[in-house]
Amino acid sequence: MIYLDNAATSFPKPYIVYDEMERCLKEYCANPGRSGHKMSIDSGIAVAEAREVISQFFNISSPMQVSFTKNATEALNIVLHGIIPQGGHVIITSMEHNSVLRPLRALEKSREVELSIAWGNKLGQIEPDCIKRLIKRNTCLIECTLSSNVNGTVMPVEDIGRIAGENNINFLLDASQGAGSISVDVEKMNIAFLAFPGHKGLLGPQGTGGLYIKEGIKVAPLLQGGTGSFSSSLEQPEMMPDSHESGTLNVPGIVGLKSGIMFINRLGLLNLQLFKSSLLNIFYKEIKNIKGVKIYSCIPEHGSNSGILAINIGDFDSSEIAEMLDKKYNIAVRGGFHCAPLAHKTLGTENRGLVRFSLGCFNTIEEIEYAIKAVYEISKCI
Amino acid sequence: MIYLDNAATSFPKPYIVYDEMERCLKEYCANPGRSGHKMSIDSGIAVAEAREVISQFFNISSPMQVSFTKNATEALNIVLHGIIPQGGHVIITSMEHNSVLRPLRALEKSREVELSIAWGNKLGQIEPDCIKRLIKRNTCLIECTLSSNVNGTVMPVEDIGRIAGENNINFLLDASQGAGSISVDVEKMNIAFLAFPGHKGLLGPQGTGGLYIKEGIKVAPLLQGGTGSFSSSLEQPEMMPDSHESGTLNVPGIVGLKSGIMFINRLGLLNLQLFKSSLLNIFYKEIKNIKGVKIYSCIPEHGSNSGILAINIGDFDSSEIAEMLDKKYNIAVRGGFHCAPLAHKTLGTENRGLVRFSLGCFNTIEEIEYAIKAVYEISKCI
Repeated sequence: MIYLDNAATSFPKPYIVYDEMERCLKEYCANPGRSGHKMSIDSGIAVAEAREVISQFFNISSPMQVSFTKNATEALNIVLHGIIPQGGHVIITSMEHNSVLRPLRALEKSREVELSIAWGNKLGQIEPDCIKRLIKRNTCLIECTLSSNVNGTVMPVEDIGRIAGENNINFLLDASQGAGSISVDVEKMNIAFLAFPGHKGLLGPQGTGGLYIKEGIKVAPLLQGGTGSFSSSLEQPEMMPDSHESGTLNVPGIVGLKSGIMFINRLGLLNLQLFKSSLLNIFYKEIKNIKGVKIYSCIPEHGSNSGILAINIGDFDSSEIAEMLDKKYNIAVRGGFHCAPLAHKTLGTENRGLVRFSLGCFNTIEEIEYAIKAVYEISKCI
Repeated sequence: MIYLDNAATSFPKPYIVYDEMERCLKEYCANPGRSGHKMSIDSGIAVAEAREVISQFFNISSPMQVSFTKNATEALNIVLHGIIPQGGHVIITSMEHNSVLRPLRALEKSREVELSIAWGNKLGQIEPDCIKRLIKRNTCLIECTLSSNVNGTVMPVEDIGRIAGENNINFLLDASQGAGSISVDVEKMNIAFLAFPGHKGLLGPQGTGGLYIKEGIKVAPLLQGGTGSFSSSLEQPEMMPDSHESGTLNVPGIVGLKSGIMFINRLGLLNLQLFKSSLLNIFYKEIKNIKGVKIYSCIPEHGSNSGILAINIGDFDSSEIAEMLDKKYNIAVRGGFHCAPLAHKTLGTENRGLVRFSLGCFNTIEEIEYAIKAVYEISKCI
């Protein structure tokens, strides 16, 4: 199968991810922080090393400010439910995922949270000034995705972070799409909260993710429970990372995530970025000449793209095209709607969805050429 | 290492767990329910099969009433935060874990939830009538652990479930300790909510767990986000299992959990139970004769035990004994406090904790004999 669904989850993973997970599972996978024996300590060290590797990757100075979560959705929910007060005002972009939109909808109801949306242009690009103009007296949070999961458009995160800083507002970056493709620097981008999944661009396994919280900011925990620390206290510990890590951690998963990031470090993030954007450019340049194909992703000259080519062909239903690609060409993509209803509205695809080709660092030029051929043949059926 | 810390997490896992996780990770690990291609469908089938296997194991008639969580703590939090109204009254036992105590403490503050505790005897055994007497007009939930994580005492779950039913109160069973050792039947035990971890007695990997919710009961979700379903809606879906499964699932972990349960089914739960309690009885019979050893766990004649021998030796600090067992004898146990402060109070170990030997289905008679020898030698140092 030619796997072009890396925005859903990356596949395959580097061998080192499989190998280190296996070694963890078979050799030392005890419960970290619970007991004091060698295996428990080894598990604890593995988790601590993963925190270090993640922190270096995002330029986080204190690894203890990183809590592990089951996915980015949990990390986003922790911040949204934990930081926004009654009647607080939040600014987001129209390119956000349901993992942001749905918690905010729940908070609109339960806490009368006010929501302002900075709408993107036809490619989902956001003007930072548009966000600036939405700031009000009660704005407590600006949230933005690093890049769109629907069409790959990269957001002007550094500018948005600067605007947030100038106005003394906390900035939450959803790095679900883009972490592992685009460099993220929590200092340079003035990020107060960083939510990231382990299983997409960071090349770790499913069941992993994390949340960085800037030192000094307290976020009410979403879950309470055993943390292995302050074991005799009935109160949830307030210190990071324990405050947001209730219950047993996914140690083999975290080990896999660490290995995924180490693989990226070894190849070099910029090299990976260059490789992926080269493939994307080849893809784009051929696809744009195919009659009947409409492209919804940034062309390389017009803006940064994290590795997605979003298209439709003629009047075909996007799910049908995805099905044809799967059944006839053995190409895995996602069709239809992509859990980001406002993004579809922004791109004008709210009625039919779109076909998303999302590239990973293990795709090859031959695969892209084959995908181009497939799109060309399907377009002939119009 | 002789691993006797199975109450923290079971180790090792059956080979089939490692093998099936590896096969999933390397061959078909896409995102289930997001895309429509073969690999996504294969992942979806694997998750659906796991739901089936879990449902059969707990006698759940509708697999769709099982949501996957990252651990039992998440499952418990979903129920506690999602079902208890302002000023509601909850009954628990004194043997509960911090994964229950801490969310309830948070709810005492935020929703003025009232809490009544049925105190156990010196072995942590609970009299069902004691729970009955605590029922009030505003009692909305009875929660009980299947067995104590501190000393292994098994709770009279069927009686408690019956009392809950007779009084039209929902019953939440925390099966963190005991699932995979003691038979759980949601119908027979009148269970409205069942929270279980994947990585303990069920022999799956860390990062897995689940929540069963009886059909017809609505529980407000703790997280909102992408579910792959109703993708264009800003509202969190209300239907199970999606309502409590926001964000990408831990597919390889869930596959491992399924394999763990299938391994138990193959050997037979009753056979495993018999084997483990035989080991425990041998352990107990020898340890009780060692001078200076105090035992806090049920003796076989006096009550059911899920596989834990909790002791102290002389006036030693329990953490020190655990350290000696680790360093000198290469035996992994947990000493100190076990994230269940009221249980320690019940057992009279609130000042020094205790040493917990927790058995798994891969322990051997030789290992138990060696552990007995180690305890004997340590007791000689008094």
